[in-house]
Amino acid sequence: MLRRAPFPRPSAAAVDKARRLLERALGPSKVITSPDGCEAYAGDESDQEPVIPDAVVVAETPDDILRALAAASEAEVPIVPRGAGSGKSGGAVPVGGGIVVTTLGMRSIKEIDREELVAVVEPGVILGDFHAAVEAEGLFYPPDPNSLKMCALGGNLAENAGGPRAFKYGVTREYVLGLEALLVDGTRLRTGRRTVKGVTGYDVTSLLVGSEGTLAVFTEATLQLIPKPPSVATLLGLFDTALASGRAVSAIIAAGLVPRCLELLDAGALSAVRARGVPVDERAGALLLIEVDGDPASCEAAMERIGEACVVEGALDVLVAQDAAQRERLWEARRALSPATRAMARYKISEDVVVPRTRLPDLLREIDRISEETSIRMLSYGHAGDGNLHVNFLWDDPDAGPRVERGLDRLFRAVVGMRGTLTGEHGVGTSKAEYLPLEQGPELIELQRRLKAVFDPKHLLNPHKIFPRRGHGVC
Amino acid sequence: MLRRAPFPRPSAAAVDKARRLLERALGPSKVITSPDGCEAYAGDESDQEPVIPDAVVVAETPDDILRALAAASEAEVPIVPRGAGSGKSGGAVPVGGGIVVTTLGMRSIKEIDREELVAVVEPGVILGDFHAAVEAEGLFYPPDPNSLKMCALGGNLAENAGGPRAFKYGVTREYVLGLEALLVDGTRLRTGRRTVKGVTGYDVTSLLVGSEGTLAVFTEATLQLIPKPPSVATLLGLFDTALASGRAVSAIIAAGLVPRCLELLDAGALSAVRARGVPVDERAGALLLIEVDGDPASCEAAMERIGEACVVEGALDVLVAQDAAQRERLWEARRALSPATRAMARYKISEDVVVPRTRLPDLLREIDRISEETSIRMLSYGHAGDGNLHVNFLWDDPDAGPRVERGLDRLFRAVVGMRGTLTGEHGVGTSKAEYLPLEQGPELIELQRRLKAVFDPKHLLNPHKIFPRRGHGVC
Repeated sequence: MLRRAPFPRPSAAAVDKARRLLERALGPSKVITSPDGCEAYAGDESDQEPVIPDAVVVAETPDDILRALAAASEAEVPIVPRGAGSGKSGGAVPVGGGIVVTTLGMRSIKEIDREELVAVVEPGVILGDFHAAVEAEGLFYPPDPNSLKMCALGGNLAENAGGPRAFKYGVTREYVLGLEALLVDGTRLRTGRRTVKGVTGYDVTSLLVGSEGTLAVFTEATLQLIPKPPSVATLLGLFDTALASGRAVSAIIAAGLVPRCLELLDAGALSAVRARGVPVDERAGALLLIEVDGDPASCEAAMERIGEACVVEGALDVLVAQDAAQRERLWEARRALSPATRAMARYKISEDVVVPRTRLPDLLREIDRISEETSIRMLSYGHAGDGNLHVNFLWDDPDAGPRVERGLDRLFRAVVGMRGTLTGEHGVGTSKAEYLPLEQGPELIELQRRLKAVFDPKHLLNPHKIFPRRGHGVC
Repeated sequence: MLRRAPFPRPSAAAVDKARRLLERALGPSKVITSPDGCEAYAGDESDQEPVIPDAVVVAETPDDILRALAAASEAEVPIVPRGAGSGKSGGAVPVGGGIVVTTLGMRSIKEIDREELVAVVEPGVILGDFHAAVEAEGLFYPPDPNSLKMCALGGNLAENAGGPRAFKYGVTREYVLGLEALLVDGTRLRTGRRTVKGVTGYDVTSLLVGSEGTLAVFTEATLQLIPKPPSVATLLGLFDTALASGRAVSAIIAAGLVPRCLELLDAGALSAVRARGVPVDERAGALLLIEVDGDPASCEAAMERIGEACVVEGALDVLVAQDAAQRERLWEARRALSPATRAMARYKISEDVVVPRTRLPDLLREIDRISEETSIRMLSYGHAGDGNLHVNFLWDDPDAGPRVERGLDRLFRAVVGMRGTLTGEHGVGTSKAEYLPLEQGPELIELQRRLKAVFDPKHLLNPHKIFPRRGHGVC
């Protein structure tokens, strides 16, 4: 956990007022005010220190959210929307206190239209449940962040979540056709459309997706589905070094192949996997997990060409999953990586940087240098096809904070220097707010602040996220 | 041409000032002020009556645009960005007079990065030239509006252009990674990224794409490319009625097939094609033009299944293009439809509505009823896979305007009633501005007006587009 200066909290009088208004508007069953009860809504899966909110609203309907927003506006306290709390950038942490409104109780899949390939959902639907429901209809919803068994669609939309399959299928935004959302002043907004195509007006839907809960609270989403690919094949390539695996990634893409996933695990990540009891060839210093989908014949042809590309680039071994159970085991190991990494040290920060994919070998070398220079253990894994790497810093010494900070700073500068981006799918939140000026010019940041003010002139909705504190940004 | 009340124009003094400022800043070679010279920049391909601008700036560099914006701001006259003028909703028509700034001279393809699958272009690049350049590198840029031989990428971005291949590949927005743009106050904005993935900050890029030249002037775009599909196959299905062809479309989609194009021509459109000398079986009252791409084996398998689906739904005939020349002839007929239709009557309006695709048969029936009720000849064609139909009204009688207006009104209400959208790819412009309230709620419209004000507080950049005049919107 890194230390960040705390943000100001509302006055005791404002908190009292907010609690009174909430209890009057919503009744005691949907409002939590005890510190013990509120503590469960204090943190997320990021490096942001948890902050206990002053009140929690457990929303069951859009009207509950509306009432919570009205109380926040009247008492002038912050209000922070929250899904499952699985975010990785502090987006759901109420750093300025105030009210947390959780939409996790709004779990209805209102509609799955097989013919139109459209679904309508509430924000609290768990992604894994949604996958199961649409696949039972022969359909497919591609976004698949590794937290899929617990994360909520509302949070996925707020953060514009990605996942391994983004390489072929793109990220959450590409599947959001329309939204129902509430602005902090109580305005009910319906954006977008139900049809696949449509260019009526500005793309407010895309502006809201990925806005990290700072512009509006989602109450419903209309999502585009696609036909479920008839067949999937999974291949595992073992390499002696991450650099060799990076060359294989480049070769696969240069050959015009489009696997749906192209996942990389470096030597440190393999150790973590082995520590969880998954046997991986001890010679291997890197692993590629590659998946293709489509009709069976083209899957087979693609697997053959991918296997060849791996061998040409020096793979130690190439394994093809023979059945769904084997496939599932490979993915379990991959999905266990985040918790497995957490178990390896007392402190962990997981970064989420992206570089143009041909720069992946350069990034891997830079990570080695940062680890050496700061004496902080590092391991990396992620979506190599997209150039999107989760770079983990692991340490036990509580005094190592400044070294970690130095390493982070160097990592971010290297990434931006390679024309990359600070976050591929986790969002800026509080974790990277101070670094925003490294990537974006002051004109763009100022413009975004003004867009925020259109939606939320009093800065009550999830404040202190995305933008650096005035005068605090890294340059 | 429908009559619309003219918009106010700037005063003679303001126009004089603007012209003086432009000539001083840019020199006479880049500034046109004669009505004869300006006339070429008065109209587009929509039903919007042309309006001769007060001055035209022929920009060769971003600085030229900057100077034009400065002159417009100082003289307080409107400024309208323009690409090739092939737009279909009045987006480039300077309805409030003032300055037109054409970026058609900025035609550099600055970069095509084969390994990263990224291109960097100026706004004046002609789409067809860009297609040829990227395909020469083994790459592919899917958006393909039918005007591709003449339209400019800047205009494509401003309108979020689609085209037949959008069924599989999506529209322009999905290929725009980042933008350089100028705000009307001279701010240079750089949005987005160069990497495939990235969620840093709000998605200002998506907000600008499709904003119809009302928020900023593009000076550069970073576009995502994909590998060129190794093979393409084209099939033509002839049906006795459009309804039968609509059933075939539903059957193809229900079978989980994803052709890259699924184009429909109704009986009237076939007459237009025949009138251009393209022989089409006289029995046919509708035609589907279907294209698949991918590896040769899966193309062949898909074509077989699509052909079967057509036959099951009662196709009179199914033809497969045997070579690239045959394929090109089929597409030429399709692309000639817009001009062919124009030649069929003195007046033409081409609409661009979208309905959920299963409602296509209902829409086709409604179009017949509208044609009957208004005694206006109508023909339709378009992207059936997306439910996106170009509905054409054709008439010779100059006094038929009110009947056409009635037909349009009925069409739009029917479309919105089917949960469709007013425009799939042409934009709102002036053509549909009055109808915006049919589809969007007052809260969303008001929010968009406020977003516009963030970018352009004085309403100088392409005014009178998208939004209805105060008090004029259809309800």
